[in-house]
Amino acid sequence: MSNTNAARGMRDFLPAQIRRREYVINIIKSVYESYGFEPLETPAVENIETLTGKYGEEGNQLIYKILKRGEGAATGEADLALRYDLTVPLARVVANHKNDLPKFFKRYQIQPVWRADRPARGRFREFYQCDVDAIGSSSMIVEAELILAICEILQRLGFKDFEIRLNHRKLLSAILSLRIEDESKHTDALVALDKLDKIGEEGVIKELIQRDIEEEIAELFLEAFTDLKNLISKLATNEENNKRTLTDLDRTLSQSNTGKVAVLELREILKFTSTSYIKIDPSLARGLSYYTGTIMEISVGKEIGSLGGGGRYDGLIGMFGKEQIPACGFSLGLERILVVMEERGMFPPELQNNSADVMVTIWNDGAIGESLKLANDLRAEGLRVFVYPEADKLGKQFKYASTINVPFVCVLGESELAENKVTLKNMQTGEQETLTREEIAAKIAKRE
Amino acid sequence: MSNTNAARGMRDFLPAQIRRREYVINIIKSVYESYGFEPLETPAVENIETLTGKYGEEGNQLIYKILKRGEGAATGEADLALRYDLTVPLARVVANHKNDLPKFFKRYQIQPVWRADRPARGRFREFYQCDVDAIGSSSMIVEAELILAICEILQRLGFKDFEIRLNHRKLLSAILSLRIEDESKHTDALVALDKLDKIGEEGVIKELIQRDIEEEIAELFLEAFTDLKNLISKLATNEENNKRTLTDLDRTLSQSNTGKVAVLELREILKFTSTSYIKIDPSLARGLSYYTGTIMEISVGKEIGSLGGGGRYDGLIGMFGKEQIPACGFSLGLERILVVMEERGMFPPELQNNSADVMVTIWNDGAIGESLKLANDLRAEGLRVFVYPEADKLGKQFKYASTINVPFVCVLGESELAENKVTLKNMQTGEQETLTREEIAAKIAKRE
Repeated sequence: MSNTNAARGMRDFLPAQIRRREYVINIIKSVYESYGFEPLETPAVENIETLTGKYGEEGNQLIYKILKRGEGAATGEADLALRYDLTVPLARVVANHKNDLPKFFKRYQIQPVWRADRPARGRFREFYQCDVDAIGSSSMIVEAELILAICEILQRLGFKDFEIRLNHRKLLSAILSLRIEDESKHTDALVALDKLDKIGEEGVIKELIQRDIEEEIAELFLEAFTDLKNLISKLATNEENNKRTLTDLDRTLSQSNTGKVAVLELREILKFTSTSYIKIDPSLARGLSYYTGTIMEISVGKEIGSLGGGGRYDGLIGMFGKEQIPACGFSLGLERILVVMEERGMFPPELQNNSADVMVTIWNDGAIGESLKLANDLRAEGLRVFVYPEADKLGKQFKYASTINVPFVCVLGESELAENKVTLKNMQTGEQETLTREEIAAKIAKRE
Repeated sequence: MSNTNAARGMRDFLPAQIRRREYVINIIKSVYESYGFEPLETPAVENIETLTGKYGEEGNQLIYKILKRGEGAATGEADLALRYDLTVPLARVVANHKNDLPKFFKRYQIQPVWRADRPARGRFREFYQCDVDAIGSSSMIVEAELILAICEILQRLGFKDFEIRLNHRKLLSAILSLRIEDESKHTDALVALDKLDKIGEEGVIKELIQRDIEEEIAELFLEAFTDLKNLISKLATNEENNKRTLTDLDRTLSQSNTGKVAVLELREILKFTSTSYIKIDPSLARGLSYYTGTIMEISVGKEIGSLGGGGRYDGLIGMFGKEQIPACGFSLGLERILVVMEERGMFPPELQNNSADVMVTIWNDGAIGESLKLANDLRAEGLRVFVYPEADKLGKQFKYASTINVPFVCVLGESELAENKVTLKNMQTGEQETLTREEIAAKIAKRE
């Protein structure tokens, strides 16, 4: 007998889990579609060169690599790798299919990615990302629509206490420039500073030093970042806070053109969206180095990290194609959304025990044909029908119906066949009625 | 500039392709659900031991293997592999989650699989399988329902000229036994004989010899198989043919108990389904060695091989668990179905150019907020709305609308804003009307 577990950090999804996953995915898809985003899918397997060097040294270590086949197998070399995120494949597709795609390509992509990370609560080696990206425009209309779509998804899933934290890489850079002139170090510094809550001040200093930043400068970065945290206003509403924070930033950065552009763009987003869910947070850094403009992140309560984040990356597509194409996107973490919704009991009750609407019993071998015919008539009425697959004692069949939780059971016995009727049992109330075939479909559909 | 192609034999799916794929997948899912099948998903990556030795020597060569991470990487060894089909993972899941699954577990699974095969027309290295399997019963009700579900899927997709070829491994074995007593060679022989149309008689003989069958016996197998081809009756209808073929078989196999059981089971399936789509074909062999009973295959026209097939495999799950559990399933080849539907023009026209229902233009920077508000009002009415992402010349925006093929465009200019109205242009007819916001959603939905 062999090991029957799924591979470490990977999961089998049984029917009840899939129904919950599909419930969430369908809401995400339908909101994205309503915003004019279109579906894209890319292969699970990419040429290894497409992925290496795109995710930093840490990311590189987590990529699953596939052995060469045939002659090459003996060398132990890898030529392919498993998809690590959905952004790099998008950049590749945009560069590759440029002539087949509209200028303002808006796509969503909901597919698994694989990372050889250490498994932990809510962290798996195969997990789904739900990405949405708008390619081809630098306008803040793009950011506004992304944020509105994310807010609508979260509301339709039943979240009430969320915030979209919003910041701008150029703003961060302008603030850092007040103390550290060498801008080439800013992005590296931000990726490290993003981990402040996780690894603490010492950890950040250590990481900055690893990234070839002198200790003295590293401390300056940390100070500048602490200043940023103090810049967040603490008034009653997000609207008031945002207004005050941007006024303060405007004053602080009066000498910086970069800083002014950033403040202007954030103001535009607030104006275009007019939603109270946005909170300008000058200390939001985001851990990816490719962001060039706005950055955003979802916060919900304290029990779990962010449910998703994104931002503008005007340089990434140029890594694959001839030209720089502006782009902005957002990635929702399906697995974390599911964990929170599970813990908070946010799934609609009808997702439970939803295997079939009715079970048809088999009276005896001679009645099989008639039972299958009844099942097909009920299917034609739009019902999901489970046929008990064997002639067996009726009691045993009823018991099975209650273990799989179907709400109704049909019996086609000799007397029913003689009268051309069907006995319908409501498994919740125990009530039993003998009805014509026409009557029962309506009764089951209404759950009477 | 780097290589931006998808890996060899793999494909990017742009929006129009995904809409066609989803159209087919949704029909398959909804029919399976109506038959009481439930969704299952397994990881793309399996422990390598789960897959090796399950697909024969040829299959083994086609499995994508994943390099060990960390310390193990240097050795060039593989510990994981990519899913090769959906049947072996199902058998693993049934053995592993035995206590969480109902006795008669009916599942469908629609996921990609990976094979390092030589790419060819309609043959890819990443492709989707749509599997449906019923676990736990030996009754022919299972076969009957599988066949009825497949027929309904094909009909709902628009196929008219299909046949479900049906045969039985025990019948084949009984026929072969008439000439070759050693039953241990029968399965191997059938897997080779299945390729007769592809590799010809010489090829089959060669392959039989490779499988340790003496040349003399190999020729006997070929003769027996040719006899089988002659057994198919050529009357006007499938019903007449099936009746005659089974009568002939009954006579030929009057001495074989195995043969009699097989004929009886085929007769039951015909009785339970009463469909004219089934054709009993005693020469149908199927290329997989794990089948133990009925085998089935879809034929449509001459232009392409089978669109799918399946059968009963009562021994496979026992390879993973403590007990033998009977099982029967069917696998639809999504990629081939799509190729045939494409060539025959079977997709509904509304799948074309289906990016959005309406585009909202941006009159100038000052009007952005109002345009976004209009877009959201239209979305609340259930419409898919594409907002042009920048203030630009109106002519340019209309031109863009026609390249992305949206049927309607909204204009919110100064005069419209003053009157609190919207100008709606029908892009097909060129008609333009100025309407209230309430009126336009209804017009767009009706495509007037």
